[in-house]
Amino acid sequence: MALLTNRERDEALARLEAWVLSDDGKAVTRRFRFDGFPAAIAFMVRAAFEAEKADHHPEWTNVYNRVDVRLTTHDAGGLTARDIAMAEAMDRLGGTG
Amino acid sequence: MALLTNRERDEALARLEAWVLSDDGKAVTRRFRFDGFPAAIAFMVRAAFEAEKADHHPEWTNVYNRVDVRLTTHDAGGLTARDIAMAEAMDRLGGTG
Repeated sequence: MALLTNRERDEALARLEAWVLSDDGKAVTRRFRFDGFPAAIAFMVRAAFEAEKADHHPEWTNVYNRVDVRLTTHDAGGLTARDIAMAEAMDRLGGTG
Repeated sequence: MALLTNRERDEALARLEAWVLSDDGKAVTRRFRFDGFPAAIAFMVRAAFEAEKADHHPEWTNVYNRVDVRLTTHDAGGLTARDIAMAEAMDRLGGTG
């Protein structure tokens, strides 16, 4: 899996409005907010099935109604198309910014 | 909900072998490990039901087969019996250290 070029990365980030590039440029992050704790956990379960299917797993933290997600491709040492696909899948599962 | 006394805290930590006091003394933390990502998520779901029932929610991070948990009682500004009860509930749900 090849790292995204700078151009591919910038195009993806322009589409993924709620996601931001990490300071080191190796990951994208997004904060999801939900109506409450059960909704946040339900999101994590749905996203977990997507992650397992893609064999591409997030680093994520839950505090009450909030889920902070970080996506990177460790094997490649940075961002790949797999991270963009997972970000898009998570966006489809909802939550607000 | 009253903060634990130092003695109550030390007695609880002696029982909760896998948990450690945070540097600021306001929380207990534990790393749980599982056989894989689905097992880690299954643990989180089971623990989430305990947390919601107790209305006492963890701060936790999942990376693949690992779940790092932090328990504190924000309203009290530190550790209370609610944190100890939640730690014990999570221990009963399994995982290795």
